[in-house]
Amino acid sequence: MRVGVIGAGYWGPNIVRNLYEAPGADAVAVADLSQDRLDAIAKRFPALRVTTDYRELISDPSIDAICVVTPVGTHRKLAEEAFAAGKHVFVEKPLAHTVSDAEAIVRAGERAGKTLMVGHTFVYNPAVAAVKGILDAKGIGKLHYLDSQRVNLGLHQFDINVLWDLGPHDVSIALYWLDQEPAWVQCTGACFVQPNIEDVVFLMIGFPSGAIAHAHLSWLAPSKLRTTILIGSRKMVVYDDNQAVEKVKVYDQGVEKLESDELRRSYRAGDIHSPRIPMTEALQVEMRHFVECVRDGKKPLSDGEAGLMVVRVLELAMRSLRSGGARVAYRLDAVRA
Amino acid sequence: MRVGVIGAGYWGPNIVRNLYEAPGADAVAVADLSQDRLDAIAKRFPALRVTTDYRELISDPSIDAICVVTPVGTHRKLAEEAFAAGKHVFVEKPLAHTVSDAEAIVRAGERAGKTLMVGHTFVYNPAVAAVKGILDAKGIGKLHYLDSQRVNLGLHQFDINVLWDLGPHDVSIALYWLDQEPAWVQCTGACFVQPNIEDVVFLMIGFPSGAIAHAHLSWLAPSKLRTTILIGSRKMVVYDDNQAVEKVKVYDQGVEKLESDELRRSYRAGDIHSPRIPMTEALQVEMRHFVECVRDGKKPLSDGEAGLMVVRVLELAMRSLRSGGARVAYRLDAVRA
Amino acid sequence: MRVGVIGAGYWGPNIVRNLYEAPGADAVAVADLSQDRLDAIAKRFPALRVTTDYRELISDPSIDAICVVTPVGTHRKLAEEAFAAGKHVFVEKPLAHTVSDAEAIVRAGERAGKTLMVGHTFVYNPAVAAVKGILDAKGIGKLHYLDSQRVNLGLHQFDINVLWDLGPHDVSIALYWLDQEPAWVQCTGACFVQPNIEDVVFLMIGFPSGAIAHAHLSWLAPSKLRTTILIGSRKMVVYDDNQAVEKVKVYDQGVEKLESDELRRSYRAGDIHSPRIPMTEALQVEMRHFVECVRDGKKPLSDGEAGLMVVRVLELAMRSLRSGGARVAYRLDAVRA
Amino acid sequence: MRVGVIGAGYWGPNIVRNLYEAPGADAVAVADLSQDRLDAIAKRFPALRVTTDYRELISDPSIDAICVVTPVGTHRKLAEEAFAAGKHVFVEKPLAHTVSDAEAIVRAGERAGKTLMVGHTFVYNPAVAAVKGILDAKGIGKLHYLDSQRVNLGLHQFDINVLWDLGPHDVSIALYWLDQEPAWVQCTGACFVQPNIEDVVFLMIGFPSGAIAHAHLSWLAPSKLRTTILIGSRKMVVYDDNQAVEKVKVYDQGVEKLESDELRRSYRAGDIHSPRIPMTEALQVEMRHFVECVRDGKKPLSDGEAGLMVVRVLELAMRSLRSGGARVAYRLDAVRA
Repeated sequence: MRVGVIGAGYWGPNIVRNLYEAPGADAVAVADLSQDRLDAIAKRFPALRVTTDYRELISDPSIDAICVVTPVGTHRKLAEEAFAAGKHVFVEKPLAHTVSDAEAIVRAGERAGKTLMVGHTFVYNPAVAAVKGILDAKGIGKLHYLDSQRVNLGLHQFDINVLWDLGPHDVSIALYWLDQEPAWVQCTGACFVQPNIEDVVFLMIGFPSGAIAHAHLSWLAPSKLRTTILIGSRKMVVYDDNQAVEKVKVYDQGVEKLESDELRRSYRAGDIHSPRIPMTEALQVEMRHFVECVRDGKKPLSDGEAGLMVVRVLELAMRSLRSGGARVAYRLDAVRA
Repeated sequence: MRVGVIGAGYWGPNIVRNLYEAPGADAVAVADLSQDRLDAIAKRFPALRVTTDYRELISDPSIDAICVVTPVGTHRKLAEEAFAAGKHVFVEKPLAHTVSDAEAIVRAGERAGKTLMVGHTFVYNPAVAAVKGILDAKGIGKLHYLDSQRVNLGLHQFDINVLWDLGPHDVSIALYWLDQEPAWVQCTGACFVQPNIEDVVFLMIGFPSGAIAHAHLSWLAPSKLRTTILIGSRKMVVYDDNQAVEKVKVYDQGVEKLESDELRRSYRAGDIHSPRIPMTEALQVEMRHFVECVRDGKKPLSDGEAGLMVVRVLELAMRSLRSGGARVAYRLDAVRA
Repeated sequence: MRVGVIGAGYWGPNIVRNLYEAPGADAVAVADLSQDRLDAIAKRFPALRVTTDYRELISDPSIDAICVVTPVGTHRKLAEEAFAAGKHVFVEKPLAHTVSDAEAIVRAGERAGKTLMVGHTFVYNPAVAAVKGILDAKGIGKLHYLDSQRVNLGLHQFDINVLWDLGPHDVSIALYWLDQEPAWVQCTGACFVQPNIEDVVFLMIGFPSGAIAHAHLSWLAPSKLRTTILIGSRKMVVYDDNQAVEKVKVYDQGVEKLESDELRRSYRAGDIHSPRIPMTEALQVEMRHFVECVRDGKKPLSDGEAGLMVVRVLELAMRSLRSGGARVAYRLDAVRA
Repeated sequence: MRVGVIGAGYWGPNIVRNLYEAPGADAVAVADLSQDRLDAIAKRFPALRVTTDYRELISDPSIDAICVVTPVGTHRKLAEEAFAAGKHVFVEKPLAHTVSDAEAIVRAGERAGKTLMVGHTFVYNPAVAAVKGILDAKGIGKLHYLDSQRVNLGLHQFDINVLWDLGPHDVSIALYWLDQEPAWVQCTGACFVQPNIEDVVFLMIGFPSGAIAHAHLSWLAPSKLRTTILIGSRKMVVYDDNQAVEKVKVYDQGVEKLESDELRRSYRAGDIHSPRIPMTEALQVEMRHFVECVRDGKKPLSDGEAGLMVVRVLELAMRSLRSGGARVAYRLDAVRA
């Protein structure tokens, strides 16, 4: 399987490196508008063909799949052209900036009968997968809510706000873990450093099961936090991606009974267990999954529908944010249904 | 100064102990409906007069001040009677469950010309006071926002939700630090364990300066958190009440300039400083402050107006919570103006 | 069972309080040379008889047991007199400052046929007991070594060095866990603040099984540490008494095979498990154990022999310390054998 | 300045990469006995000349300097040949396994009049340098002692023990910080996994000033620790290389006076300050320093004498270790004097 990569910015070289290391795949060519970037990537990967014209990749019959690692605004056009040329397509997250663009990409993939995968890397993170395993094993009881802190100082973007920058991570993780279509979305925030670009948002997603996912996303924080707590009726989980060793901890504790007013502390606290998490790089898992899905015709874990659902949540969250935090139903917008 | 304490439940004995230790004051009598509780407190403090009839305390001319440490629903009646009898009054937080009750207590104190103080203990916490000093010294620049995590497992209440249980702490701290009347209040939450009693809420308070205070309040969490971050334009502060030593840390860092798209990481990260915080018990500071205010006719830091403002924020937060999280203006409700 | 307590200094009141709360026992009298201390304890426990003459307690036929909570130099005399009067005796740790004094106390108890228990509180600490359970269950394999950090700033003593101040804790814990008589003792250290009083020592105890216990004991440290690691061939344990929640952690990891030079990292790292530790106060467990041992004629966990062994290790450690850290055999000194 | 690198094992490629990035230098050739390793490094650095015969590098007149990154036993021979050919020489740490070999290398460098630098990378670590600056500024008062924990699971060596594996780090750091020749060395340890290869040692170095450096070095530990505390009479410092942000913390605390027996806790605890540490890679600083020293004829921070002193301490520590931990004087061995 021969792959062409469009976009040699910050993330592109990581994609190339992991394609090189994935068995059964080869990165053969890279396109970018910037000759400087092409020179840099060519120095690092001398066997790579480079070009400033992405059409060379799309029209090359020896190329099986295209990775679109360009600014979000260009995803639709590039993906549609690649599908039209009969390629399998990997698109970096978020799939698009609007539901209508995302839907167009999904439809183009369906028409072409080719694989569409979206680069929601975190669902391939071994710790996130371990939490999914814990949830699926049902031991934590009914999942009440989860709360995520994804904050740090300084990676301000200029074209998108913190919701679109950091939000795709938490939304894709929450949708993967909960495995339900949301019921509603709600979002508040503020713009402190740049006008009209939120640098802090609080995002909430409600689910039909009654579960809630809440996230604090911020470009303004004293230190980097990557912590999510999951509250089940019988167990609780902490996933802290900053930890080198104990990334996931399972707390065998919960509220048991609440009968008398006098004895208010009727809770149960038990052992804490931290399963060993493999140290595999998430992007490596992701790239190998793409190669396998193309080769075997499998549906990717983060397929077009999953990527579209993330875009829909973010679009609704923007609507809520602009209206001062009003709750927005998910289904009213589900025009595809 | 001789003090009578009404209420010998969980908190009453702490009040008594700190009154004993405060110079210039003496706890002389305690009233409670439960003879068991009276027996217990009498065993611990043998010199104390105990009674099941609080009126004995209010009508005792040798008693100068009354501490009301009873369930919130009784605060108004007891405070009004105490003021009518010419006593100074200390009322545990929250001052009342409704703005109208809180206003009635404030007015009763004004009519009596006596001291009214509300037990917002956290504003007497040395670490909270240290943060106030940092804010007042202006070194942190413009205060953008603060976010608080006040969560733990198991102290479920049966009559009030987590907003009324834990919220008074964060609201009183935020009002003390920001020293502004709020502009708006917003609150979302969910009831997981008991119907109609929120065990998780997310509270936001907006201020005229543009600052925002956000709090995650929960009775359902794997471990106890008492952490607040404060984001200023030039410095950031972390206040973690769980820490034995480094309760307050000041991060000399901020976003400096955001000019080019390429060089996105234009932030500044400098030294971290953790000032020594005295280990004085907040309740001791509070009780001594009450004694001094009564003796010298000073306005308490947590006076009736401060207590009323907390109740107003919580009442508005309840309104927002019941309406699905809509933003509620603070001033429209300011019927006293 | 009626108990008299000799010594009302720092630790005495804790003993009294726990005797009050222990079922089947009562603290009835306290002796101390200082009237101030007696006044203070009488204020707190009004039912207590107080006296400056300890002989009143020893000669009182209604008193069944004596707790000796006085400076170490007085332990032997007081214990011998109490045994001579037919009392059961509890002696605070360390049992004595010399092996000969400790042996004299043990013999006095044997002659009297009464219970002798030494106040090595840490062996009653629920976390220490949990580690003992883990060791006895054999899952950690062969115990290679343990290393303890017991350091903090500022509780300098004036009559004894840090070895005699903090050492009894680690020695008693190590002897309890390993359940062997030591093979040798070795100790180095230095006197930085006061001449001839070591404020930092490094203590090593070798055991016949090949296991080693090492401890860093210091009155000079930036922060308080109470951490012990235990290295087994199949598992490792961390016991951190400073942690509120995860006091004990079991690491399922070890070195598996070391065969090839190229592949040096042939180790195994698995899950981490933190068992729930009850929050019972160690002193409460200890006092109840003393009451039970007296009542039922049971041998205390920290009996005279255990207390003597601790003194012997410390005496040998002093000899090693004074000779610049030479290794000292344990058995050559075992004159009792 | 053209550099040849002998040794393409684990560390060699890092040296090559940093030479490439250092201004004024170029890695031009690499020699290794293994063709596989040469192929691997050639793939990564295509411009590099590779050879299985190191003599090609030493005899190449266009090469100015040789980096010796081979097993320790070969250091002397390679360094002597390189000096004889008129090259500047960089030797990986430790300089040699015996004092006599180390001395021979130093003398060879002196005879050649060329630069000799030893790869004690940690003295180029920005955090270690920051601590040096704090010590030199004298604010911490008299340095009493330092204690280091350098432990982790599983990088067992087969030819050397943990003293020679991890010890060069702590010894070189301590000598750099204290800037004195040691007075004595003492070392104890044990072999748990392999016979005759210590996997745990406790190393102590005494200095003429009275200061002591202690280190716990182990290949058997539940988690990786890289923590050193430094105790001064007026301040204390914690250097934790595992921390991403607060690598160095200065505690403004110490023992002030110890006068009365009653008031034992006469210590002072003040603020804690964590200076910003640059995130520069230590190896990069080191390689640039080598290039500068060669170019400008400067004496390297880790010159031959420094490397020799480390070897001497380790050799004496081995002697102490083999004799059961006896204290060994440093000067008696100083045969060069």
